[in-house]
Amino acid sequence: MNYKLTLQYDGTDFQGWQIQDGQRTVQGELTRALVLLEGRNVTVHGSGRTDSGVHAEGQVASVNLQRGLPPERLRAALNGNLPRDVRVLAAETAPDEFHARFSARGKTYLYRVILGPVMSPFWERYAHHEARALDLARMQTTARLFLGTHDWTAFSNIHTDAKTRVRTITELGVTVREEARAHAQMLEITASADGFLRYMVRSLVGTLLAVGRHEMDEELVRRAITHGDRSLAGATAQPRGLTLLRVRYD
Amino acid sequence: MNYKLTLQYDGTDFQGWQIQDGQRTVQGELTRALVLLEGRNVTVHGSGRTDSGVHAEGQVASVNLQRGLPPERLRAALNGNLPRDVRVLAAETAPDEFHARFSARGKTYLYRVILGPVMSPFWERYAHHEARALDLARMQTTARLFLGTHDWTAFSNIHTDAKTRVRTITELGVTVREEARAHAQMLEITASADGFLRYMVRSLVGTLLAVGRHEMDEELVRRAITHGDRSLAGATAQPRGLTLLRVRYD
Repeated sequence: MNYKLTLQYDGTDFQGWQIQDGQRTVQGELTRALVLLEGRNVTVHGSGRTDSGVHAEGQVASVNLQRGLPPERLRAALNGNLPRDVRVLAAETAPDEFHARFSARGKTYLYRVILGPVMSPFWERYAHHEARALDLARMQTTARLFLGTHDWTAFSNIHTDAKTRVRTITELGVTVREEARAHAQMLEITASADGFLRYMVRSLVGTLLAVGRHEMDEELVRRAITHGDRSLAGATAQPRGLTLLRVRYD
Repeated sequence: MNYKLTLQYDGTDFQGWQIQDGQRTVQGELTRALVLLEGRNVTVHGSGRTDSGVHAEGQVASVNLQRGLPPERLRAALNGNLPRDVRVLAAETAPDEFHARFSARGKTYLYRVILGPVMSPFWERYAHHEARALDLARMQTTARLFLGTHDWTAFSNIHTDAKTRVRTITELGVTVREEARAHAQMLEITASADGFLRYMVRSLVGTLLAVGRHEMDEELVRRAITHGDRSLAGATAQPRGLTLLRVRYD
Protein backbone atom coordinates (compact mmCIF):
# COMPACT_ATOMS: atom_id res chain seq x y z
CA MET A 1 0.00 0.00 0.00
CA ASN A 2 1.28 3.45 -0.97
CA TYR A 3 0.86 6.30 1.55
CA LYS A 4 1.09 10.07 1.41
CA LEU A 5 2.23 11.65 4.70
CA THR A 6 1.93 15.35 5.59
CA LEU A 7 4.56 16.37 8.13
CA GLN A 8 5.56 19.24 10.38
CA TYR A 9 8.98 19.63 11.89
CA ASP A 10 10.94 22.15 13.88
CA GLY A 11 14.23 22.05 11.98
CA THR A 12 16.33 23.59 14.78
CA ASP A 13 17.74 20.34 16.12
CA PHE A 14 17.89 18.43 12.81
CA GLN A 15 20.75 18.24 10.33
CA GLY A 16 18.18 18.77 7.58
CA TRP A 17 15.83 16.33 5.89
CA GLN A 18 18.16 13.86 4.21
CA ILE A 19 19.20 10.67 6.00
CA GLN A 20 22.92 10.63 6.90
CA ASP A 21 24.92 8.23 9.02
CA GLY A 22 25.48 9.49 12.55
CA GLN A 23 23.34 12.63 12.05
CA ARG A 24 19.92 13.43 13.44
CA THR A 25 17.80 14.07 10.34
CA VAL A 26 14.04 14.12 9.67
CA GLN A 27 14.19 11.36 7.05
CA GLY A 28 16.35 9.35 9.45
CA GLU A 29 13.85 9.64 12.32
CA LEU A 30 10.92 8.87 10.03
CA THR A 31 12.71 5.83 8.58
CA ARG A 32 13.44 4.55 12.09
CA ALA A 33 9.76 4.83 13.07
CA LEU A 34 8.63 3.16 9.82
CA VAL A 35 11.12 0.29 10.19
CA LEU A 36 9.79 -0.36 13.72
CA LEU A 37 6.32 -0.67 12.24
CA GLU A 38 7.17 -2.61 9.09
CA GLY A 39 9.86 -4.93 10.50
CA ARG A 40 12.04 -4.51 7.42
CA ASN A 41 13.93 -1.73 5.71
CA VAL A 42 11.82 0.93 3.99
CA THR A 43 12.56 4.04 1.94
CA VAL A 44 10.53 7.14 2.58
CA HIS A 45 10.69 9.85 -0.10
CA GLY A 46 10.31 13.55 0.71
CA SER A 47 9.05 16.18 -1.74
CA GLY A 48 12.58 17.55 -1.52
CA ARG A 49 15.36 18.11 0.97
CA THR A 50 15.23 20.90 3.47
CA ASP A 51 18.55 22.18 4.80
CA SER A 52 19.80 22.03 8.36
CA GLY A 53 17.76 24.41 10.55
CA VAL A 54 14.94 24.87 8.00
CA HIS A 55 11.40 24.10 9.24
CA ALA A 56 8.34 22.57 7.61
CA GLU A 57 4.68 23.27 8.32
CA GLY A 58 3.54 21.07 5.42
CA GLN A 59 6.27 18.79 4.06
CA VAL A 60 5.00 15.78 2.11
CA ALA A 61 6.53 12.30 2.03
CA SER A 62 5.53 9.02 0.36
CA VAL A 63 6.22 5.47 1.42
CA ASN A 64 5.21 2.00 0.26
CA LEU A 65 4.36 -0.42 3.07
CA GLN A 66 3.61 -4.15 2.98
CA ARG A 67 1.38 -3.81 6.04
CA GLY A 68 -1.88 -2.27 4.84
CA LEU A 69 -2.62 -0.18 7.94
CA PRO A 70 -5.64 2.15 8.03
CA PRO A 71 -4.21 5.70 7.57
CA GLU A 72 -5.43 6.89 10.99
CA ARG A 73 -3.61 4.03 12.69
CA LEU A 74 -0.46 4.63 10.65
CA ARG A 75 -0.45 8.27 11.75
CA ALA A 76 -0.95 7.37 15.43
CA ALA A 77 1.70 4.63 15.32
CA LEU A 78 4.27 6.92 13.69
CA ASN A 79 3.60 9.81 16.08
CA GLY A 80 3.98 7.37 18.97
CA ASN A 81 7.49 6.52 17.76
CA LEU A 82 8.71 9.90 16.53
CA PRO A 83 10.41 12.59 18.63
CA ARG A 84 8.19 15.57 19.43
CA ASP A 85 9.90 17.95 17.00
CA VAL A 86 8.52 16.01 14.03
CA ARG A 87 4.84 15.08 13.68
CA VAL A 88 2.71 13.35 11.06
CA LEU A 89 -0.27 15.69 10.60
CA ALA A 90 -2.05 13.41 8.15
CA ALA A 91 -1.64 10.00 6.52
CA GLU A 92 -3.63 9.04 3.42
CA THR A 93 -3.55 6.11 1.04
CA ALA A 94 -2.32 7.16 -2.41
CA PRO A 95 -2.30 5.68 -5.92
CA ASP A 96 0.69 3.41 -6.59
CA GLU A 97 2.25 5.95 -8.95
CA PHE A 98 2.22 8.74 -6.31
CA HIS A 99 5.76 9.82 -5.40
CA ALA A 100 6.29 12.78 -3.05
CA ARG A 101 9.13 14.17 -5.17
CA PHE A 102 8.32 13.24 -8.76
CA SER A 103 4.60 13.97 -8.47
CA ALA A 104 5.16 17.41 -6.92
CA ARG A 105 3.96 20.30 -9.12
CA GLY A 106 4.98 23.19 -6.91
CA LYS A 107 6.08 24.41 -3.50
CA THR A 108 5.54 27.41 -1.28
CA TYR A 109 8.09 28.65 1.23
CA LEU A 110 7.71 31.37 3.84
CA TYR A 111 10.63 33.40 5.20
CA ARG A 112 9.95 35.26 8.46
CA VAL A 113 11.84 38.31 9.70
CA ILE A 114 11.19 40.08 13.01
CA LEU A 115 11.79 43.83 12.55
CA GLY A 116 12.91 46.33 15.16
CA PRO A 117 15.45 46.62 17.95
CA VAL A 118 14.51 43.53 20.02
CA MET A 119 14.15 39.89 18.95
CA SER A 120 11.30 38.10 20.73
CA PRO A 121 12.40 34.85 22.42
CA PHE A 122 9.27 33.25 20.94
CA TRP A 123 10.58 33.70 17.39
CA GLU A 124 14.24 33.02 18.12
CA ARG A 125 14.10 29.59 16.46
CA TYR A 126 11.72 30.47 13.63
CA ALA A 127 12.59 33.90 12.30
CA HIS A 128 15.55 36.03 11.29
CA HIS A 129 16.01 39.28 13.20
CA GLU A 130 16.61 42.54 11.33
CA ALA A 131 17.33 45.53 13.54
CA ARG A 132 18.11 47.88 10.62
CA ALA A 133 15.30 49.71 8.83
CA LEU A 134 14.19 48.05 5.57
CA ASP A 135 12.78 49.88 2.55
CA LEU A 136 9.66 47.78 2.02
CA ALA A 137 8.49 49.49 -1.19
CA ARG A 138 11.90 48.92 -2.76
CA MET A 139 11.81 45.23 -1.83
CA GLN A 140 8.31 44.85 -3.26
CA THR A 141 9.26 46.47 -6.57
CA THR A 142 12.36 44.34 -6.90
CA ALA A 143 10.47 41.15 -5.97
CA ARG A 144 8.52 41.45 -9.26
CA LEU A 145 11.76 40.93 -11.23
CA PHE A 146 11.93 37.38 -9.93
CA LEU A 147 8.56 36.33 -11.32
CA GLY A 148 8.63 34.04 -14.34
CA THR A 149 10.86 31.41 -15.90
CA HIS A 150 14.63 31.84 -15.63
CA ASP A 151 17.86 29.93 -15.17
CA TRP A 152 18.50 30.44 -11.44
CA THR A 153 22.23 29.60 -11.44
CA ALA A 154 23.05 32.92 -9.73
CA PHE A 155 20.73 32.03 -6.85
CA SER A 156 21.66 28.43 -6.13
CA ASN A 157 24.44 26.23 -4.85
CA ILE A 158 27.16 25.63 -7.41
CA HIS A 159 27.09 21.94 -6.43
CA THR A 160 23.85 20.45 -7.61
CA ASP A 161 22.64 17.29 -9.24
CA ALA A 162 19.67 19.06 -10.80
CA LYS A 163 19.43 18.42 -14.56
CA THR A 164 18.32 21.96 -15.26
CA ARG A 165 18.44 25.18 -13.30
CA VAL A 166 15.41 26.59 -15.01
CA ARG A 167 12.48 27.14 -12.65
CA THR A 168 9.31 29.21 -12.81
CA ILE A 169 8.54 31.49 -9.85
CA THR A 170 4.80 32.18 -9.68
CA GLU A 171 4.67 34.23 -6.47
CA LEU A 172 7.13 36.37 -4.51
CA GLY A 173 5.22 38.37 -1.94
CA VAL A 174 6.72 40.83 0.56
CA THR A 175 4.34 41.91 3.33
CA VAL A 176 4.57 43.30 6.86
CA ARG A 177 2.11 42.61 9.67
CA GLU A 178 1.87 43.20 13.41
CA GLU A 179 3.07 40.18 15.40
CA ALA A 180 1.32 40.69 18.75
CA ARG A 181 3.23 37.95 20.54
CA ALA A 182 6.60 39.52 19.60
CA HIS A 183 5.43 43.10 20.32
CA ALA A 184 6.98 43.81 16.92
CA GLN A 185 6.37 43.81 13.18
CA MET A 186 7.00 40.72 11.12
CA LEU A 187 8.14 40.80 7.51
CA GLU A 188 6.94 37.79 5.54
CA ILE A 189 8.44 36.79 2.20
CA THR A 190 6.33 34.14 0.47
CA ALA A 191 7.80 32.32 -2.53
CA SER A 192 6.03 29.82 -4.79
CA ALA A 193 7.54 28.00 -7.78
CA ASP A 194 7.29 24.73 -9.68
CA GLY A 195 10.44 23.83 -7.78
CA PHE A 196 13.42 25.41 -6.06
CA LEU A 197 17.15 24.70 -6.37
CA ARG A 198 19.25 24.20 -3.29
CA TYR A 199 19.72 27.49 -1.33
CA MET A 200 17.50 29.25 -3.88
CA VAL A 201 14.87 30.67 -1.50
CA ARG A 202 17.48 31.79 1.02
CA SER A 203 19.48 33.42 -1.78
CA LEU A 204 16.39 35.28 -3.09
CA VAL A 205 15.61 36.40 0.45
CA GLY A 206 19.21 37.49 1.12
CA THR A 207 19.11 39.53 -2.09
CA LEU A 208 15.77 41.14 -1.20
CA LEU A 209 17.06 42.02 2.28
CA ALA A 210 20.16 43.62 0.72
CA VAL A 211 17.86 45.65 -1.55
CA GLY A 212 15.77 46.67 1.49
CA ARG A 213 18.94 47.89 3.23
CA HIS A 214 19.99 49.85 0.10
CA GLU A 215 23.08 47.67 -0.25
CA MET A 216 21.94 46.47 -3.69
CA ASP A 217 19.79 48.08 -6.34
CA GLU A 218 17.24 46.79 -8.80
CA GLU A 219 19.67 46.99 -11.74
CA LEU A 220 22.17 44.68 -10.03
CA VAL A 221 19.41 42.16 -9.31
CA ARG A 222 18.27 42.33 -12.93
CA ARG A 223 21.83 41.56 -14.08
CA ALA A 224 22.20 38.67 -11.61
CA ILE A 225 19.01 37.12 -12.98
CA THR A 226 19.98 37.74 -16.63
CA HIS A 227 23.66 36.76 -16.47
CA GLY A 228 23.41 33.98 -13.92
CA ASP A 229 26.42 35.36 -12.05
CA ARG A 230 26.45 34.21 -8.42
CA SER A 231 28.81 37.02 -7.35
CA LEU A 232 26.03 39.51 -8.16
CA ALA A 233 23.43 37.89 -5.85
CA GLY A 234 23.03 38.80 -2.18
CA ALA A 235 24.19 36.66 0.75
CA THR A 236 22.28 33.49 1.60
CA ALA A 237 19.83 34.27 4.43
CA GLN A 238 19.93 32.28 7.70
CA PRO A 239 18.11 28.92 7.63
CA ARG A 240 16.11 29.48 10.84
CA GLY A 241 13.80 32.03 9.16
CA LEU A 242 12.77 29.58 6.44
CA THR A 243 9.73 27.27 6.51
CA LEU A 244 8.37 24.97 3.81
CA LEU A 245 4.66 25.83 3.94
CA ARG A 246 3.12 23.40 1.44
CA VAL A 247 3.70 21.18 -1.57
CA ARG A 248 1.25 21.20 -4.48
CA TYR A 249 0.14 18.06 -6.36
CA ASP A 250 -2.37 17.61 -9.19
CA MET B 1 17.37 56.42 38.95
CA ASN B 2 14.35 54.11 39.06
CA TYR B 3 13.55 52.07 35.93
CA LYS B 4 10.58 50.08 34.69
CA LEU B 5 11.53 47.15 32.45
CA THR B 6 9.11 45.23 30.21
CA LEU B 7 10.36 41.68 29.59
CA GLN B 8 9.63 38.62 27.48
CA TYR B 9 10.90 35.18 28.29
CA ASP B 10 10.51 31.64 27.08
CA GLY B 11 10.10 29.86 30.41
CA THR B 12 10.96 26.38 29.11
CA ASP B 13 14.58 26.37 30.26
CA PHE B 14 14.13 28.48 33.42
CA GLN B 15 13.34 27.30 36.94
CA GLY B 16 10.80 30.11 37.12
CA TRP B 17 11.25 33.79 37.89
CA GLN B 18 12.60 33.84 41.43
CA ILE B 19 16.35 33.90 42.03
CA GLN B 20 17.64 30.67 43.63
CA ASP B 21 21.18 29.45 44.27
CA GLY B 22 22.40 27.05 41.61
CA GLN B 23 19.25 27.37 39.48
CA ARG B 24 18.78 29.10 36.15
CA THR B 25 16.03 31.65 36.83
CA VAL B 26 14.86 34.80 35.03
CA GLN B 27 15.48 37.06 38.03
CA GLY B 28 18.89 35.42 38.41
CA GLU B 29 19.90 36.11 34.79
CA LEU B 30 18.57 39.67 34.97
CA THR B 31 20.42 40.32 38.24
CA ARG B 32 23.64 39.02 36.72
CA ALA B 33 23.29 41.37 33.71
CA LEU B 34 22.44 44.34 35.99
CA VAL B 35 25.38 43.68 38.33
CA LEU B 36 27.74 43.64 35.32
CA LEU B 37 26.42 47.09 34.39
CA GLU B 38 26.23 48.59 37.86
CA GLY B 39 29.38 47.10 39.37
CA ARG B 40 27.64 46.39 42.69
CA ASN B 41 24.82 44.21 43.91
CA VAL B 42 21.32 45.23 42.83
CA THR B 43 17.83 43.92 43.51
CA VAL B 44 15.39 43.72 40.64
CA HIS B 45 11.70 43.30 41.55
CA GLY B 46 9.24 41.47 39.33
CA SER B 47 5.48 42.11 39.27
CA GLY B 48 5.25 38.61 40.69
CA ARG B 49 6.82 35.19 40.36
CA THR B 50 6.10 32.94 37.45
CA ASP B 51 6.56 29.21 38.00
CA SER B 52 9.04 26.94 36.28
CA GLY B 53 8.09 26.51 32.61
CA VAL B 54 5.67 29.47 32.54
CA HIS B 55 6.31 32.12 29.86
CA ALA B 56 5.95 35.90 29.78
CA GLU B 57 5.11 38.13 26.83
CA GLY B 58 4.87 41.22 29.04
CA GLN B 59 6.36 40.74 32.50
CA VAL B 60 7.30 43.98 34.30
CA ALA B 61 10.26 44.53 36.62
CA SER B 62 11.63 47.54 38.46
CA VAL B 63 15.16 48.35 39.53
CA ASN B 64 16.99 51.26 41.10
CA LEU B 65 20.38 52.05 39.56
CA GLN B 66 23.09 54.49 40.63
CA ARG B 67 24.22 54.88 37.02
CA GLY B 68 21.68 57.14 35.31
CA LEU B 69 21.75 55.48 31.88
CA PRO B 70 19.40 56.65 29.12
CA PRO B 71 16.63 53.97 28.91
CA GLU B 72 17.51 53.00 25.32
CA ARG B 73 21.11 52.34 26.32
CA LEU B 74 20.04 50.39 29.40
CA ARG B 75 17.86 48.16 27.22
CA ALA B 76 20.65 47.56 24.69
CA ALA B 77 23.24 46.88 27.41
CA LEU B 78 20.98 44.39 29.20
CA ASN B 79 20.03 42.56 26.00
CA GLY B 80 23.72 42.32 25.13
CA ASN B 81 24.36 40.49 28.41
CA LEU B 82 21.22 38.36 28.69
CA PRO B 83 20.69 34.90 27.17
CA ARG B 84 18.42 34.87 24.12
CA ASP B 85 15.46 33.30 25.91
CA VAL B 86 14.92 36.48 27.93
CA ARG B 87 14.71 39.95 26.36
CA VAL B 88 14.10 43.47 27.60
CA LEU B 89 11.42 44.81 25.23
CA ALA B 90 11.39 48.27 26.78
CA ALA B 91 13.16 50.26 29.49
CA GLU B 92 11.67 53.47 30.87
CA THR B 93 12.54 55.78 33.71
CA ALA B 94 9.91 55.64 36.47
CA PRO B 95 8.96 57.72 39.52
CA ASP B 96 10.91 56.77 42.67
CA GLU B 97 7.83 55.23 44.25
CA PHE B 98 7.22 52.87 41.30
CA HIS B 99 7.62 49.22 42.34
CA ALA B 100 6.81 46.43 39.86
CA ARG B 101 5.03 44.35 42.50
CA PHE B 102 3.45 46.83 44.91
CA SER B 103 2.33 49.27 42.19
CA ALA B 104 0.69 46.53 40.09
CA ARG B 105 -3.10 46.91 39.81
CA GLY B 106 -3.86 43.83 37.75
CA LYS B 107 -2.55 41.07 35.54
CA THR B 108 -3.68 39.15 32.47
CA TYR B 109 -2.64 35.57 31.76
CA LEU B 110 -3.29 33.52 28.63
CA TYR B 111 -3.49 29.73 28.62
CA ARG B 112 -3.13 28.08 25.19
CA VAL B 113 -4.39 24.62 24.27
CA ILE B 114 -3.93 22.96 20.86
CA LEU B 115 -7.00 20.85 20.09
CA GLY B 116 -7.16 17.71 17.95
CA PRO B 117 -5.23 14.50 17.40
CA VAL B 118 -1.78 15.95 16.59
CA MET B 119 0.35 18.44 18.54
CA SER B 120 2.25 20.84 16.29
CA PRO B 121 6.01 20.93 17.02
CA PHE B 122 5.77 24.72 16.82
CA TRP B 123 3.56 24.87 19.92
CA GLU B 124 5.22 22.06 21.84
CA ARG B 125 6.87 24.52 24.27
CA TYR B 126 4.04 27.04 24.48
CA ALA B 127 0.73 25.18 24.60
CA HIS B 128 -0.95 22.24 26.26
CA HIS B 129 -2.26 19.53 23.92
CA GLU B 130 -5.78 18.19 24.33
CA ALA B 131 -6.67 15.29 22.03
CA ARG B 132 -10.07 14.68 23.65
CA ALA B 133 -13.12 16.65 22.51
CA LEU B 134 -13.98 19.60 24.79
CA ASP B 135 -17.48 20.97 25.35
CA LEU B 136 -16.77 24.63 24.69
CA ALA B 137 -20.25 25.96 25.58
CA ARG B 138 -20.07 24.18 28.93
CA MET B 139 -16.66 25.71 29.66
CA GLN B 140 -17.90 29.19 28.73
CA THR B 141 -20.95 28.93 30.97
CA THR B 142 -18.86 27.69 33.89
CA ALA B 143 -16.22 30.38 33.36
CA ARG B 144 -18.78 33.02 34.40
CA LEU B 145 -18.92 31.51 37.91
CA PHE B 146 -15.35 32.62 38.48
CA LEU B 147 -16.00 36.30 37.86
CA GLY B 148 -16.01 38.52 40.91
CA THR B 149 -14.47 38.69 44.36
CA HIS B 150 -13.89 35.42 46.25
CA ASP B 151 -11.51 33.67 48.59
CA TRP B 152 -9.57 31.46 46.15
CA THR B 153 -8.18 28.99 48.68
CA ALA B 154 -9.59 26.04 46.69
CA PHE B 155 -7.63 27.18 43.64
CA SER B 156 -4.22 27.94 45.07
CA ASN B 157 -1.21 26.35 46.68
CA ILE B 158 -1.72 25.51 50.34
CA HIS B 159 1.71 27.01 51.06
CA THR B 160 1.55 30.73 50.52
CA ASP B 161 2.82 33.85 52.19
CA ALA B 162 -0.08 35.91 50.81
CA LYS B 163 -1.86 37.87 53.57
CA THR B 164 -5.26 37.26 52.04
CA ARG B 165 -6.56 34.83 49.47
CA VAL B 166 -9.30 37.16 48.33
CA ARG B 167 -8.87 38.26 44.70
CA THR B 168 -11.20 39.78 42.11
CA ILE B 169 -11.36 38.11 38.70
CA THR B 170 -12.52 40.63 36.09
CA GLU B 171 -12.23 38.48 32.94
CA LEU B 172 -12.25 34.76 32.21
CA GLY B 173 -12.66 34.27 28.46
CA VAL B 174 -12.79 30.93 26.67
CA THR B 175 -12.45 31.16 22.88
CA VAL B 176 -11.38 28.94 20.00
CA ARG B 177 -9.63 30.08 16.82
CA GLU B 178 -7.92 28.53 13.81
CA GLU B 179 -4.14 28.31 14.30
CA ALA B 180 -2.88 28.10 10.71
CA ARG B 181 0.69 27.26 11.66
CA ALA B 182 -0.44 24.25 13.72
CA HIS B 183 -3.03 23.12 11.13
CA ALA B 184 -5.31 22.89 14.16
CA GLN B 185 -7.66 24.81 16.42
CA MET B 186 -6.36 26.65 19.44
CA LEU B 187 -8.34 27.12 22.63
CA GLU B 188 -7.41 30.30 24.47
CA ILE B 189 -8.34 30.92 28.10
CA THR B 190 -7.72 34.54 29.09
CA ALA B 191 -7.80 35.44 32.78
CA SER B 192 -7.54 38.93 34.30
CA ALA B 193 -7.60 39.80 38.00
CA ASP B 194 -6.26 42.34 40.46
CA GLY B 195 -3.79 39.61 41.34
CA PHE B 196 -3.41 35.84 41.29
CA LEU B 197 -2.33 33.39 44.01
CA ARG B 198 0.30 30.78 43.30
CA TYR B 199 -1.01 28.05 40.91
CA MET B 200 -4.32 29.92 40.72
CA VAL B 201 -4.51 30.36 36.92
CA ARG B 202 -3.38 26.79 36.25
CA SER B 203 -5.92 25.51 38.79
CA LEU B 204 -8.77 27.52 37.16
CA VAL B 205 -7.69 26.22 33.75
CA GLY B 206 -7.44 22.61 34.99
CA THR B 207 -10.95 22.94 36.41
CA LEU B 208 -12.33 24.40 33.17
CA LEU B 209 -10.69 21.60 31.14
CA ALA B 210 -12.28 19.00 33.47
CA VAL B 211 -15.65 20.69 32.90
CA GLY B 212 -15.03 20.64 29.14
CA ARG B 213 -14.33 16.87 29.32
CA HIS B 214 -17.53 16.34 31.37
CA GLU B 215 -15.43 15.12 34.31
CA MET B 216 -16.78 17.94 36.52
CA ASP B 217 -20.03 19.84 36.48
CA GLU B 218 -20.96 23.42 37.20
CA GLU B 219 -22.40 22.58 40.63
CA LEU B 220 -19.11 21.09 41.79
CA VAL B 221 -17.26 24.20 40.63
CA ARG B 222 -19.76 26.41 42.43
CA ARG B 223 -19.15 24.46 45.64
CA ALA B 224 -15.36 24.63 45.24
CA ILE B 225 -15.60 28.42 44.92
CA THR B 226 -18.05 28.76 47.84
CA HIS B 227 -16.49 26.31 50.28
CA GLY B 228 -12.84 26.88 49.45
CA ASP B 229 -12.23 23.13 49.37
CA ARG B 230 -9.17 22.26 47.31
CA SER B 231 -10.26 18.65 46.84
CA LEU B 232 -13.22 19.91 44.79
CA ALA B 233 -11.08 21.83 42.25
CA GLY B 234 -9.67 20.26 39.08
CA ALA B 235 -6.04 19.28 38.56
CA THR B 236 -3.42 21.99 38.05
CA ALA B 237 -2.83 22.44 34.29
CA GLN B 238 0.69 22.05 32.83
CA PRO B 239 2.91 25.15 33.10
CA ARG B 240 4.00 25.18 29.45
CA GLY B 241 0.55 26.38 28.26
CA LEU B 242 0.65 29.46 30.51
CA THR B 243 1.90 32.92 29.55
CA LEU B 244 1.82 36.16 31.52
CA LEU B 245 0.51 38.60 28.89
CA ARG B 246 0.61 41.93 30.68
CA VAL B 247 0.65 43.76 34.01
CA ARG B 248 -1.57 46.77 34.59
CA TYR B 249 -0.47 49.91 36.47
CA ASP B 250 -2.32 53.17 37.15
